[in-house]
Amino acid sequence: MLRTKTCGELRISNKREQVTLCGWLQRSRDLGGMTFIDLRDRYGITQLAFNMDTDAALCERARKLGREFVLKIVGNVVERSNKNNKIPTGEIEILVSDFEVLNVSKTPPFTIEDKSDGGDELRMKYRYLDLRRTPVRQNLELRHHLAIEIRNYLNRLNFIEIETPCLIKSTPEGARDFVVPSRMNTGEFYALPQSPQTFKQLLMVSGYDRYFQIVRCFRDEDLRADRQPEFTQIDCEMSFVTQEDILETFEGLVRHLFKVVKQVDVPPLQRMTYADAMRFYGCDKPDTRFDMTFVELNEVVKGKGAAFFDTAELIIGINAKGCADYTRKQLDELTDFVKRPQVGASGLTYIKFNTDGSVKSSIDKFFSEDVLRAIGQKFDAQSGDLLLILSGETEPMQKALCELRLEMGSRLGLRDPKKFAPLWVVDFPLLEWDKDTARYYAKHHPFTSPKSEDIDKLETSPGDVHANAYDMVINGVEVGGGSIRIHDRTLQNRMFQALQHAVMFFIQSP
Amino acid sequence: MLRTKTCGELRISNKREQVTLCGWLQRSRDLGGMTFIDLRDRYGITQLAFNMDTDAALCERARKLGREFVLKIVGNVVERSNKNNKIPTGEIEILVSDFEVLNVSKTPPFTIEDKSDGGDELRMKYRYLDLRRTPVRQNLELRHHLAIEIRNYLNRLNFIEIETPCLIKSTPEGARDFVVPSRMNTGEFYALPQSPQTFKQLLMVSGYDRYFQIVRCFRDEDLRADRQPEFTQIDCEMSFVTQEDILETFEGLVRHLFKVVKQVDVPPLQRMTYADAMRFYGCDKPDTRFDMTFVELNEVVKGKGAAFFDTAELIIGINAKGCADYTRKQLDELTDFVKRPQVGASGLTYIKFNTDGSVKSSIDKFFSEDVLRAIGQKFDAQSGDLLLILSGETEPMQKALCELRLEMGSRLGLRDPKKFAPLWVVDFPLLEWDKDTARYYAKHHPFTSPKSEDIDKLETSPGDVHANAYDMVINGVEVGGGSIRIHDRTLQNRMFQALQHAVMFFIQSP
Repeated sequence: MLRTKTCGELRISNKREQVTLCGWLQRSRDLGGMTFIDLRDRYGITQLAFNMDTDAALCERARKLGREFVLKIVGNVVERSNKNNKIPTGEIEILVSDFEVLNVSKTPPFTIEDKSDGGDELRMKYRYLDLRRTPVRQNLELRHHLAIEIRNYLNRLNFIEIETPCLIKSTPEGARDFVVPSRMNTGEFYALPQSPQTFKQLLMVSGYDRYFQIVRCFRDEDLRADRQPEFTQIDCEMSFVTQEDILETFEGLVRHLFKVVKQVDVPPLQRMTYADAMRFYGCDKPDTRFDMTFVELNEVVKGKGAAFFDTAELIIGINAKGCADYTRKQLDELTDFVKRPQVGASGLTYIKFNTDGSVKSSIDKFFSEDVLRAIGQKFDAQSGDLLLILSGETEPMQKALCELRLEMGSRLGLRDPKKFAPLWVVDFPLLEWDKDTARYYAKHHPFTSPKSEDIDKLETSPGDVHANAYDMVINGVEVGGGSIRIHDRTLQNRMFQALQHAVMFFIQSP
Repeated sequence: MLRTKTCGELRISNKREQVTLCGWLQRSRDLGGMTFIDLRDRYGITQLAFNMDTDAALCERARKLGREFVLKIVGNVVERSNKNNKIPTGEIEILVSDFEVLNVSKTPPFTIEDKSDGGDELRMKYRYLDLRRTPVRQNLELRHHLAIEIRNYLNRLNFIEIETPCLIKSTPEGARDFVVPSRMNTGEFYALPQSPQTFKQLLMVSGYDRYFQIVRCFRDEDLRADRQPEFTQIDCEMSFVTQEDILETFEGLVRHLFKVVKQVDVPPLQRMTYADAMRFYGCDKPDTRFDMTFVELNEVVKGKGAAFFDTAELIIGINAKGCADYTRKQLDELTDFVKRPQVGASGLTYIKFNTDGSVKSSIDKFFSEDVLRAIGQKFDAQSGDLLLILSGETEPMQKALCELRLEMGSRLGLRDPKKFAPLWVVDFPLLEWDKDTARYYAKHHPFTSPKSEDIDKLETSPGDVHANAYDMVINGVEVGGGSIRIHDRTLQNRMFQALQHAVMFFIQSP
């Protein structure tokens, strides 16, 4: 080794040891009689001291070193006079006796600090410099730590990681394939896998009853903030299990990861039906770090003389607790928010339960205070609360109120990034009706099994059939999901019939 | 779970337990009063028993089941009357009380047995059936086990696994790239990585001083037995280290893997210089499970009256101990072997030291018995030994004798597949002279550092410069290797000069 220690490990107990360190020059300070240099490596920062009195020549050389120079230094560990209790090595410094410049550096185009002065584009251009920054390094370390823990956890449960090919035959999945022209067979192409779907099914057929793979997937789709052409997923498949076994297995994995990687004790996961998720949160990936659940008002407000409510399919609202003092300007902002095309409401109704006991609303001229108070009761509204209400068609209003709820959660500081609220969303519908084409589509995919108690509805009321399908959601983000596959040919045929496109899928099956 | 136990775990201690198993019908035997079925899953085989006397209907149903049917059975664990001590579950069987056919199966196109009757092509076509066979499954399990152990070992040494992209810019490496057309930029292409070479160097520049990745690599080359278009390698890179640190790290890894995965204690690895490997084994990946090292005879036989030796650049041989009784036919076979184009010798000289004390050779008319005995002494030949000698140009003869040595090792049973002889081959030459183009080429790659004591020869005698480059070889197979990179710009320039194509590489560097 060129070094005897890293820049992160020296403590007061190492006092008087001679050490050799290698690293990058983070910053230097010239105090006349002394020159100090912070030397950085992956493990931390150690202060180097050069003394003009004891070795002027060395100190002069040190003063010529620039940021990000790569150094190898030899020196003795000494106790600092000015201790820095913000870093683990802050009690010591190295009195340098000699050093070697392993490599010089141009002045970096942005500061290599936790908060850099470099913009996104500049940092991407010089990615190898950005990767030196502690927050970026910690992301890679977290990812590594997660991967190691995932593998060991699943290995303990008898899962076997099996690598599947990257150069495969194109299979119909949701997205567009990347293709690779074949040199040996002109005009023919490999596809890069959108997921190892087909391979893991074949592995189940082959009897590998617990498979996993942390695997690269490829989808030739347009970029979005959470979508890239290539990404990595934890791919799993199990045989001879029920939905319950899968939920327990991966709930166990996630709780274990929070425990060992983030030191967070996550309680057993809540299980919410898809129906409840839509009813109380307006979406199938609810952020349950905070309540503010939807309240339906159809019964309370319909037929009470307000035409805009009477004609609405759904009237729903949330209780923004303690927001009765919102100003006209703030309420206008919220109205503008819900009217944004991405949110899609036509307007916002509010009711304030003021701290002085009065009630003030945007619908005062349509409703008596009694009706307003009756509405308040549905929300369990207290003095100081603000009710925000939307009305219109069911799906658009659920989506819009979902957005407004998240907005209010953010405004009220209820979406703490340090808090984690994972849950299962279960009992998804098996099929979705599409108005335009007047037919059902598979909500998950056409191989998803219906719940056994619903099978008989496949022909009579397909829209009421629930699926053995589930998603894991954390803080409003879908982090995983899956389903129990149909293993029975007869049932699969009934499913195809329900989908009215059995022929198409049979032709594509291998 | 559909099952309560696997097919591999029941023992006599489970007697009288009721269990549910799932698995594949391996085979069935109908003995009139009883029907026995072997049920197989990933974990083993359990015998099922059906009794005609106690449940004729169930027994009749069981008799209709075919090979590879997927079953779910319920029954009680009972002690077998005929125990099978060849399998861990051999003391018990399940008296089946009920079963369900989870899926039927067509008769498989080959037997799902350790030794299948299916040829390669048929087994590849039905790969999902071949994967059910125990030897194939054990290969995948071994690979999984190795990967887990490698990751944990390197993680303990502070290595961090970092995933690098698959859709990259083409970089010049040894082989042909697979390319992926870009949809967004017509006419432009991604390349699939031949290795994460560039990325790991950037990671070192970024300060991730111990990187690894078990990673897919892609090379668009023609297929060979040991070469596929995509393959997985353990990719590593370290900063601030010497060659010695790398050898120790990966020697430690390999010995650990042999210990935990194969329960084999491998002693510290031999280190053999490239020069010795060529001199004693004729290649840079010697199979050291057996000796039979080369002996050079130039001094002993030249100028003794045999023109075919006098004109040869190199005369070398091996001692096939105990083979003096080889027949004319066997010696002709060996002569045919060395004359094959892949081996490339023009003929084979032999000397037999017979057990009766006589000496018999193919060169009796050229040499006296004294000369033959002098040759024998060089080989430490004993009574009963057979010397096999080749003569001609140095490199072709080394290659040919290397092949002959391996052939003799195989014939004599000296290449035990259960024995492991890993070693390091070190001190590779930095440069190789190419006669045709009359210039030097980098033996490893042009960024490999010369040994510090040889740097001054870069300009004066480049062919004598040794490199900080090393290969790990096990049983004649190169399993890994690497080099210390040049980190100094001045030295890199001298290297480019020595290669006389500095310009070309500067243009290609990023």
